[in-house]
Amino acid sequence: MAQATIGNSEFDRDTAVTRREPGVYEARVSAGWTVHGAANGGYLLALIGRALGDTLPHPHPFTITAHYLGATRPGPALVRTTAVRGGRGLSTGQASLCQTAPDGTETERVRVLASYGDLDALPADIRTTAKPPAIPPYEHCAGRNEGRDRGRDEGRDPVPDAAAALSERLDVRLDPATAGWAVGAPSGRGEMRAWFGLADGRDPDPLALLLAVDALPPTAFEMGLTGWVPTVELTAHVRRRPAPGPLRVCVVTRNLAGGYLEEDAEVWDTQDRLVAQSRQLARPVVKRAG
Amino acid sequence: MAQATIGNSEFDRDTAVTRREPGVYEARVSAGWTVHGAANGGYLLALIGRALGDTLPHPHPFTITAHYLGATRPGPALVRTTAVRGGRGLSTGQASLCQTAPDGTETERVRVLASYGDLDALPADIRTTAKPPAIPPYEHCAGRNEGRDRGRDEGRDPVPDAAAALSERLDVRLDPATAGWAVGAPSGRGEMRAWFGLADGRDPDPLALLLAVDALPPTAFEMGLTGWVPTVELTAHVRRRPAPGPLRVCVVTRNLAGGYLEEDAEVWDTQDRLVAQSRQLARPVVKRAG
Repeated sequence: MAQATIGNSEFDRDTAVTRREPGVYEARVSAGWTVHGAANGGYLLALIGRALGDTLPHPHPFTITAHYLGATRPGPALVRTTAVRGGRGLSTGQASLCQTAPDGTETERVRVLASYGDLDALPADIRTTAKPPAIPPYEHCAGRNEGRDRGRDEGRDPVPDAAAALSERLDVRLDPATAGWAVGAPSGRGEMRAWFGLADGRDPDPLALLLAVDALPPTAFEMGLTGWVPTVELTAHVRRRPAPGPLRVCVVTRNLAGGYLEEDAEVWDTQDRLVAQSRQLARPVVKRAG
Repeated sequence: MAQATIGNSEFDRDTAVTRREPGVYEARVSAGWTVHGAANGGYLLALIGRALGDTLPHPHPFTITAHYLGATRPGPALVRTTAVRGGRGLSTGQASLCQTAPDGTETERVRVLASYGDLDALPADIRTTAKPPAIPPYEHCAGRNEGRDRGRDEGRDPVPDAAAALSERLDVRLDPATAGWAVGAPSGRGEMRAWFGLADGRDPDPLALLLAVDALPPTAFEMGLTGWVPTVELTAHVRRRPAPGPLRVCVVTRNLAGGYLEEDAEVWDTQDRLVAQSRQLARPVVKRAG
């Protein structure tokens, strides 16, 4: 397989939108980015984010929030966008992703609110106390399939997440310290760390960061929970254009309470820059493991 | 002054909204909750949040995001709400706060997207690794006015934030370890911790948490920056109904880059429960202190 590039890759093709009229975009939700048959939230955010980037005068999502109203299935979709405010450095817009049932009923699946800017126009100053995640070198981290196969060899069912079509599109290499869940030995800590890339070798760009913040297995798995962890709301801040090469993603959950948990993600590039931060509120559909 | 109560307090009166027709609410932005003449973002979020709570079938903002489009001034305002989706446990809505100029032009100041639920319907389970902030007892923390007066005694100008009408409405007692900025000696760390209450003694409720997450002096002050730190976007998760009594609020900034910074806030109640989390993206209008 030839090395894919930004603009010519699975991710670009599967997040493409076609403007039908001002503020109305046709899209096709790909079956390639699903988990348990529903499109991944980060993938949908990237697709909607692409439509908003076309509508608004600025190219990059500085802060983007999605509320997931229901599962989005592979197939045709419409993205309706509205420009809310245009300023010199930032513009704000809103979008809805809708799907039409066989009976003609249109249902909204995702509602998005975002402010866009131009990352390339920002000054280079940095003052940071954030540290890149302590994660072993890429070659010491296991791909998902390795974890799955190990579990299978030991007579366990494949880990739930491994059924995901999504995992075929990604090159996610989990830190062994947060991969215990895959072999039935979760650490009990709500942490997930991994190297993250696209399977076809496409380098990251701002839209791919929206995928990266929601692409790791749920932290709940390392907390000993199994099942489905649907996102209620996800907000991502894109802080810098990522350098080429694999990203490091670190996701932490501190508080599972009242049936909800937060997942805080950081994304770091090969130049040790914090390129994105996100937080999501999710509601695990929980069964205790074991 | 008699002890104020939930439903009968300055905060309740100044965030009140009157339904004019379905989805349209009249409000009056009070001069009492301003900083440098512009209404505080958390106060506006509480006011808009009250209108959304009236529109939606659920009472409490589980996750609420505001994009601040421009400064909101004291005076009349309209809040327009739309119900996006209603579900069994959660409903999603959107709102805009608008003000009308003397020439009749209506300008949108804040756009909000939120999902509401019922905190009182959640199970009591908690699994948390989050720890309450290490903050000295209430009586050892200084009120804002004390810091300001100390600065004045030493011949410095009043600290910028002390000019805020907002500070009269709040009982904010800063941890001395994060109050150096008020006497010209910022720590250099992007942290701010305080006890937080309403000046009239009203106990906290879910709407007051929306105020609490945006009511401390900017972390940028402790990083040695002065000036105005307007919020681009703020997302708050309300995780639990707060117990009566003062809250502890801890705000941390890790990354100031490209002219933007994040402020992550946690709010804890008197029962040592994490009752709210928030993150905002802000863009300091910076001049170096000293």
